[in-house]
Amino acid sequence: MSTPRATLILVRHGQSQWNLENRFTGWWDVDLTEQGVAEATAAGALLADKGLLPDVAFTSLQTRAIKTLHLALEACGRLWIPETKDWRLNERHYGGLTGLDKQQTRDRHGDEQVHIWRRSFDVPPPMLEAGGEFDLAADPRYAGIAVPGAESLKLTIERVLPYYESDILPVLAAGRTVIVSAHGNSLRALVKHLSAISDEEISELEIPTGQPIVFEFGADMAPGPRYYLKDR
Amino acid sequence: MSTPRATLILVRHGQSQWNLENRFTGWWDVDLTEQGVAEATAAGALLADKGLLPDVAFTSLQTRAIKTLHLALEACGRLWIPETKDWRLNERHYGGLTGLDKQQTRDRHGDEQVHIWRRSFDVPPPMLEAGGEFDLAADPRYAGIAVPGAESLKLTIERVLPYYESDILPVLAAGRTVIVSAHGNSLRALVKHLSAISDEEISELEIPTGQPIVFEFGADMAPGPRYYLKDR
Repeated sequence: MSTPRATLILVRHGQSQWNLENRFTGWWDVDLTEQGVAEATAAGALLADKGLLPDVAFTSLQTRAIKTLHLALEACGRLWIPETKDWRLNERHYGGLTGLDKQQTRDRHGDEQVHIWRRSFDVPPPMLEAGGEFDLAADPRYAGIAVPGAESLKLTIERVLPYYESDILPVLAAGRTVIVSAHGNSLRALVKHLSAISDEEISELEIPTGQPIVFEFGADMAPGPRYYLKDR
Repeated sequence: MSTPRATLILVRHGQSQWNLENRFTGWWDVDLTEQGVAEATAAGALLADKGLLPDVAFTSLQTRAIKTLHLALEACGRLWIPETKDWRLNERHYGGLTGLDKQQTRDRHGDEQVHIWRRSFDVPPPMLEAGGEFDLAADPRYAGIAVPGAESLKLTIERVLPYYESDILPVLAAGRTVIVSAHGNSLRALVKHLSAISDEEISELEIPTGQPIVFEFGADMAPGPRYYLKDR
């Protein structure tokens, strides 16, 4: 009997309210829009249509990713699989940019500065103001976690990858089909690692919302080339 | 610092399609009706309103209980808590009655026989026909589980209680607020145990859909009297 091939499905949450409003979101917990709900359901319908059914699920502690997961699993008849939520799959923390309109921020700080904050590999945005409107220190979901004040993509990777290696990879290595419902930057961290993308190139890689990205692993657990499920 | 008081919240899933159609359901996986969705959401709104917010969730492998949990957690802002699904919280397996209309079954077998199947403590209904329409042996969610052919309430208790003791009670003993979203008979099993109800009386106890039932535990982990959250 051959071991089933390990398969990893990555899904970025569907459109959120602040995606729609073009605001920096990060760890702030905004809900999906109607379009986001439809994208999540379509992602699950695609999994069913292609016969790629997840066995185990991982997601972040953020509503938009959790709901995307639930809607996708329901649409492919897999609401019953085990699911683990962890803050280390959260979106990059946008620090002091949280809640700001992206265009207003460009108007105030200039295109170049905003581009650096959004797209540089290792420059974090300004720190979040402690005690301000978007301070999550008292949020019970983060009890016991040192909530970052701001994260670069590099800092995001430094918490996503250890979690992948300790918690997700062993499940994959058992030959399971794993779905990870997460965020633009936490998924960038995984794609960077699995597709060996350079620090310079990764920031420009766009992860589309609600489009399952698939990696199949070889017998040696080497990841194959990634593909969009819609293209198969 | 005092340990927080262990609290157990039991919620029976909202109305399902076969509740509405008055059919025996058991392990068959039917969805919530619109009314069932509303009941689940109202259960979560009540938790929020009363400030009784769960820290940890358990549910069955059945869509109607899982969706009830998700809707209730979303309505009280707790979608992010850890959640464990286990077949041992499933509804009682109705065996050969699965899918049958309750009135037609009474017409065919007589009121008395149907009352025995539904309400006796230890008489299981007829066994499910293997290979028939409602055979779940090939359902991947039950891979590795010896799916029963039919269960009495007694048999249901014999798998619910060990799970409660091994998996749920230790979480309660740590002082957490636990929510269990499950089914009429798997919840009867828990209420029977916690409220020390006799074999004769338990079958007549109705667990209403979407109404949170609460047990608070003493320092010795003795459960206090149960109450409906709506009455507090």
